[in-house]
Amino acid sequence: MGPEPSDLQRLVDAEAIRDVVRRYCRGIDRMDLALVRSCYHPDAVDDHGTFVGTVDEYLEWVERLLVRYDATFHLVANQLVEVEGDLARSETYGVAHHRSSDPDPKLNLTIGFRFLDRFERRPGSGWRIARRVATTEWVQAVTPGQAWPIPDGIGVGRRGPDDPLYDLVPEFPAHGS
Amino acid sequence: MGPEPSDLQRLVDAEAIRDVVRRYCRGIDRMDLALVRSCYHPDAVDDHGTFVGTVDEYLEWVERLLVRYDATFHLVANQLVEVEGDLARSETYGVAHHRSSDPDPKLNLTIGFRFLDRFERRPGSGWRIARRVATTEWVQAVTPGQAWPIPDGIGVGRRGPDDPLYDLVPEFPAHGS
Amino acid sequence: MGPEPSDLQRLVDAEAIRDVVRRYCRGIDRMDLALVRSCYHPDAVDDHGTFVGTVDEYLEWVERLLVRYDATFHLVANQLVEVEGDLARSETYGVAHHRSSDPDPKLNLTIGFRFLDRFERRPGSGWRIARRVATTEWVQAVTPGQAWPIPDGIGVGRRGPDDPLYDLVPEFPAHGS
Repeated sequence: MGPEPSDLQRLVDAEAIRDVVRRYCRGIDRMDLALVRSCYHPDAVDDHGTFVGTVDEYLEWVERLLVRYDATFHLVANQLVEVEGDLARSETYGVAHHRSSDPDPKLNLTIGFRFLDRFERRPGSGWRIARRVATTEWVQAVTPGQAWPIPDGIGVGRRGPDDPLYDLVPEFPAHGS
Repeated sequence: MGPEPSDLQRLVDAEAIRDVVRRYCRGIDRMDLALVRSCYHPDAVDDHGTFVGTVDEYLEWVERLLVRYDATFHLVANQLVEVEGDLARSETYGVAHHRSSDPDPKLNLTIGFRFLDRFERRPGSGWRIARRVATTEWVQAVTPGQAWPIPDGIGVGRRGPDDPLYDLVPEFPAHGS
Repeated sequence: MGPEPSDLQRLVDAEAIRDVVRRYCRGIDRMDLALVRSCYHPDAVDDHGTFVGTVDEYLEWVERLLVRYDATFHLVANQLVEVEGDLARSETYGVAHHRSSDPDPKLNLTIGFRFLDRFERRPGSGWRIARRVATTEWVQAVTPGQAWPIPDGIGVGRRGPDDPLYDLVPEFPAHGS
């Protein structure tokens, strides 16, 4: 005897939704904007507070922001996903680190955020974001004594197709594919 | 051919347990104490180190703490859940940010913690916390140069029913329901 | 009507893989090196940048590092797991806190990292790491004003078999078993 099919369906749905949020983070941090785009329905609206717009507008806006930094790191943790049929509410807690070799604090902020997502399942495209509200919960600058260099010889992540992720399992989809 | 029913049951159980921990965080951060209460069995014991008591006592204690802050943010990450029948051991790593417009460091601490939970499944109420031990792993104050204001116009989370989460999917349960 | 068996299998596989990463963290933070070892295939290679070697060599190296600290705390969050048959690519975002009563910053660093893992499922041993690349994304020192003592009477985690986790559910496997 096993679980009810409806419980299993909810599990599959919640996992698909969490994977979209995780792919969004990979897309942003590896600068794979095609991957970011695939997280939204074409008519989705993204509301980042100072920015509200369509997916096309959002991608343009976020790319302009991203190129200011040397690296970003979007850690996402608790994702509370509630599903009813083809509609879901997803709340994700996260912390985003922005890093630049320019010591200007504005280019090195750490931001606590929540992604509040209305997810819809549609034929053909599955679960994607229909509307996102990103809230900012706290912001911290990196102070001079706190910044610490990454020692030479340590493996560091990269932003594009040369990130070690893609070499590790060459059988799997590469950056931008 | 698919997985064993027992593997699927474990998956459903682990997900139900993780959802309780996530709802606990939402309940605390949105000040939805009915939601916090629903995470525990009525005879549960919560051990926060300086506090040990029943659920009723814990809710009273935690509410007195929460009103001191302007906002809290409970990020929870790795949840290692081990299930055997109707009993489970759940270990959750988390970081809690406490924020106040009063710059007193004691009102702006960031705390690394673990929730060590004994979960029990009981007829009628399902998986809930039977005993929680919360450990503190590290504590950091926000130093003056590190605190950074949230710029005007940025969407911020709110503590009660006016948090944008509830408007986003009006079809779903609201705060306190 | 429920989900496809292949979707369910993927769910079971992804959960097994995430659990390996979570057990790795428990093994490191509780100094349960047998648990760390069980996360790798015997012929696995671990590449931490300054260290590249076999599992045996890695365990020796990491133990020498761990004993320098009073405590470590490996929070792992987004785990994007892609599975095809018996092969998987797993990317995990995490933050590691290292703490020592010695105020030397080098013994109190906080490190943002990613675990990039090639997982393989093999008969008898199931899903384990076949190759790990750990990247360092950012490093922060704890500055003097930021370090904050854990108040007396607060429950703290411990590194070995006396961590409160093991007492909480005595029915379950103890440290090192």
